[in-house]
Amino acid sequence: MSFFDTDAPHPEASALTAFAGNRLDRQAEYRKDDCVEKALAIEGTHLLAFTGNKLILKHDSQVLDPLFSAYELAELKPDFDRAVLLGYRETGEPRIAVPVETAADDLASQYKPTDARALYRDGLLDEELQGEAAQAFALLNWNAANRFCGRCGSETTSELGGYKRTCTSCDNQMFPRTDPVVIMLTIDEERDMCLLGRSHHFQEGMYSCLAGFVEPGETIEHAVRRETVEESGIVAGRVRYHASQPWPMPHSLMIGCYAQALSTEITIDPQEMSDVRWFSRQEVIEMLDAGPDIKPFGPAKGAIAYRLMRDWIDWPR
Amino acid sequence: MSFFDTDAPHPEASALTAFAGNRLDRQAEYRKDDCVEKALAIEGTHLLAFTGNKLILKHDSQVLDPLFSAYELAELKPDFDRAVLLGYRETGEPRIAVPVETAADDLASQYKPTDARALYRDGLLDEELQGEAAQAFALLNWNAANRFCGRCGSETTSELGGYKRTCTSCDNQMFPRTDPVVIMLTIDEERDMCLLGRSHHFQEGMYSCLAGFVEPGETIEHAVRRETVEESGIVAGRVRYHASQPWPMPHSLMIGCYAQALSTEITIDPQEMSDVRWFSRQEVIEMLDAGPDIKPFGPAKGAIAYRLMRDWIDWPR
Repeated sequence: MSFFDTDAPHPEASALTAFAGNRLDRQAEYRKDDCVEKALAIEGTHLLAFTGNKLILKHDSQVLDPLFSAYELAELKPDFDRAVLLGYRETGEPRIAVPVETAADDLASQYKPTDARALYRDGLLDEELQGEAAQAFALLNWNAANRFCGRCGSETTSELGGYKRTCTSCDNQMFPRTDPVVIMLTIDEERDMCLLGRSHHFQEGMYSCLAGFVEPGETIEHAVRRETVEESGIVAGRVRYHASQPWPMPHSLMIGCYAQALSTEITIDPQEMSDVRWFSRQEVIEMLDAGPDIKPFGPAKGAIAYRLMRDWIDWPR
Repeated sequence: MSFFDTDAPHPEASALTAFAGNRLDRQAEYRKDDCVEKALAIEGTHLLAFTGNKLILKHDSQVLDPLFSAYELAELKPDFDRAVLLGYRETGEPRIAVPVETAADDLASQYKPTDARALYRDGLLDEELQGEAAQAFALLNWNAANRFCGRCGSETTSELGGYKRTCTSCDNQMFPRTDPVVIMLTIDEERDMCLLGRSHHFQEGMYSCLAGFVEPGETIEHAVRRETVEESGIVAGRVRYHASQPWPMPHSLMIGCYAQALSTEITIDPQEMSDVRWFSRQEVIEMLDAGPDIKPFGPAKGAIAYRLMRDWIDWPR
């Protein structure tokens, strides 16, 4: 028995979530300022193209294809000054993401601008391309939000292929931002039930795990307990990490945990939640099998919340 | 047996790390723009004072005390416009952090300006105050780095007691930043050895766990494997989360994991590391007991790297 064997139903639950299929060699320590330029010069290079906060997919007969050749992309007015180098495929092909100047509404009908949420919900790309798109969304979002220096207000310039921005005036250096979010399935072991809730913005009938941003000065475990008690009034005790997931809206890292319920009486935070309830094991099984046509229903398959719920059901007992 | 019982030597390793002792009630969902003002008006309120990136401690005979009354603080020229509300103690006393205009070099001799690293390394405060200081360091650092809007370059103003900044021109809203960092003890199970390294900036003779920032589009497990192979050439397989720690330099969340070594031959990245080596169980035991006088020596007790090493030794087998 290895130290790395646990009683979990999968060796790495993170690998089963949406956006987790990125296998690019990032060569993170060797990014240079001219890396995008050099990658563009490599023959056969394909690009991911973005308009605003949307990835552009090409309708290619039945298939949706996100990979543009430089030649194909030209008519959409790519802005290569804002391009980012994501990394390299095993074949040596570089993967570059580039914003275009053509607005989503002005795109020809063979192009389908798609936001990150639709990409995952509708399963429009294979896992590897979905993971590459996640990296691109996060980096482009960060670059767009940091065109000016937070310390002095002057313009910043992109360096290291989109992985650094430096102020043209005060030399302040900025690096990509990733926001850790805790998402937890809180379990009442004695009653064999779990806690699920609805935010105001959820689709009608949908219930999912509670979640919230990790705050400055917190451990993951602190954040899980704080968010749980804030949103539901339930006091949580022990916390067990289960899986993580990139979530590029705009650039989060979801940290999925199980939390031990130490109380049962729910007091919802009406500002954030429209409902929070206890669900039995049987109810969760039915929710995960049901689509949105039967209410209540659960999160989509690639969501880390789905993973937490499904794996609680499937955990060997 | 509970689902939350594991074979780990502690129920919550995170709780044993430095900066993890913050127990303030943050009332995160109910922060209002006037919350600092209202908290300052509460009788008996004490403040944490900062000059530049340093917490000011008062020499009070033998004790170092970070808590100022508003009266005591007046002579250091506090800037209440930049004050942040951390939360409330169980007694109801609010905890506020406030930058002062007096520079560290101009402070009278009864004041000791102290950076976050010294605070933890020298164990200058009890765990709870240390945790409150961590939250304050992270928030003040973030506010100072975002005085101007990254989207348009205009000035931003502080809202919600220091937990939000809004652009005065384009209404862009910004929230505190926390940078997830993976730190891992990579284990060769067959040889019962672990992988430790030295960065160029480490004290002479010190070895610790490898670490690095989680990148956009990565899971925690991806980041662990990528950083391990980049810095040491060692291929890692399975990953097991162990503990997390707030690390306010300037605002990180350390995510401590064990990683399974699938190879043995080390190729260091000379740009980042001055040495990486395998250590036997016995060598690690000796390192953790030795101080910096005997080389090689390990990380300080509150460090999450210490926790990963110590708990590997203490893990029931």
